[in-house]
Amino acid sequence: MDSEASIHDLKTYVRDFVTKRNWLKYHNPKDLAEAICIEAAELLQVFQWATAEEASSWKNVPSKMGRIREELADVFIYCLSMANVLEIDVSEAILQKLSKNEVKYPVNKYFGRARLE
Amino acid sequence: MDSEASIHDLKTYVRDFVTKRNWLKYHNPKDLAEAICIEAAELLQVFQWATAEEASSWKNVPSKMGRIREELADVFIYCLSMANVLEIDVSEAILQKLSKNEVKYPVNKYFGRARLE
Amino acid sequence: MDSEASIHDLKTYVRDFVTKRNWLKYHNPKDLAEAICIEAAELLQVFQWATAEEASSWKNVPSKMGRIREELADVFIYCLSMANVLEIDVSEAILQKLSKNEVKYPVNKYFGRARLE
Amino acid sequence: MDSEASIHDLKTYVRDFVTKRNWLKYHNPKDLAEAICIEAAELLQVFQWATAEEASSWKNVPSKMGRIREELADVFIYCLSMANVLEIDVSEAILQKLSKNEVKYPVNKYFGRARLE
Repeated sequence: MDSEASIHDLKTYVRDFVTKRNWLKYHNPKDLAEAICIEAAELLQVFQWATAEEASSWKNVPSKMGRIREELADVFIYCLSMANVLEIDVSEAILQKLSKNEVKYPVNKYFGRARLE
Repeated sequence: MDSEASIHDLKTYVRDFVTKRNWLKYHNPKDLAEAICIEAAELLQVFQWATAEEASSWKNVPSKMGRIREELADVFIYCLSMANVLEIDVSEAILQKLSKNEVKYPVNKYFGRARLE
Repeated sequence: MDSEASIHDLKTYVRDFVTKRNWLKYHNPKDLAEAICIEAAELLQVFQWATAEEASSWKNVPSKMGRIREELADVFIYCLSMANVLEIDVSEAILQKLSKNEVKYPVNKYFGRARLE
Repeated sequence: MDSEASIHDLKTYVRDFVTKRNWLKYHNPKDLAEAICIEAAELLQVFQWATAEEASSWKNVPSKMGRIREELADVFIYCLSMANVLEIDVSEAILQKLSKNEVKYPVNKYFGRARLE
């Protein structure tokens, strides 16, 4: 599906869900930022006390993948809600941030390392 | 742009950025979940100590919107990286979560309220 | 009790709980930092979708206060565990940070405002 | 110092810092919960992209320990502020939560494992 669905489509699905329930009144940007934080922590909780090695092997563990997909979806849903409320073009914002990062992290300096230290 | 860019396209841009820098070794799912949490908190920080009313008016304040767009893009970028690493179809995960929420939050019970109490 | 209990006492209670269960192996500092984040988000979740005004009135709502006390205790417990593992003197760290903040936020400039803008 | 300083003393230092700057108006519990989350994420950021093994060795790396002490102090300071504002006895809340956890995680079942699975 990721090959066909545009961000615009996904924003529309999320907006419809919210407006049908008359929940737009809850969706001020500050509360949405809180919601994104809360869902991000629930995603992190799936990995709590696991080692990085264990986590890497979960691609083949359906029970873990089910939880991860749901929690990741929640983060996306609230991010799309914030984009809806603030009329942010997500694709443009992502491409601009990647361009900025291209300059900040030149390949020749950062190849194979996340930080210069 | 959001009308044209598919999630697949955005995933590809993000993957290219990462592989060009040989950063895939950092991208185990646990560390990506941490990164999503950290970026979500940086987004929340833009709203720190502001009232919900103030935050709602920022749609017309370019300096605030610039920061919000960047921090929101960072959350999306790491979420797309997690989807890349775990081969998650984001559009499908979002639609399935919305369907589940349709059942969990029936319109007639939750119209106008986020919680039953 | 807060007048009598020293941080040293509280650290000891937390350490005993952990060692009795042979959980020290989980307590590397990175995983404890994750745990603090996760518990902090659970504390934030108590306030989700409430207005700041509503939250301010909860001091007199036992059901809300019960949840807040528990979640706040969880954040403290993991912070004390990190201090145990890294042998940090918490009281000293707090007083040094307050001294640093005294310099960073001089009273005459920051009286009544959290930020200069 | 941790052997002498009571939680009551630390709460007083934090309260004095806040009232001197007339910042109590910012300290509604919801915004303090946000602040705790934000500082917890800054603490986590110190460990970002490091392995658990690397993090475990930092007890002897002064530059890392300096950052950790400061970020951990920030989490404690906002937690103490929340306790001040909501008049929570922190020592009591911690001991009650540990008692509850004693029941939830009996030693014979949870010895050496954080989860039953």
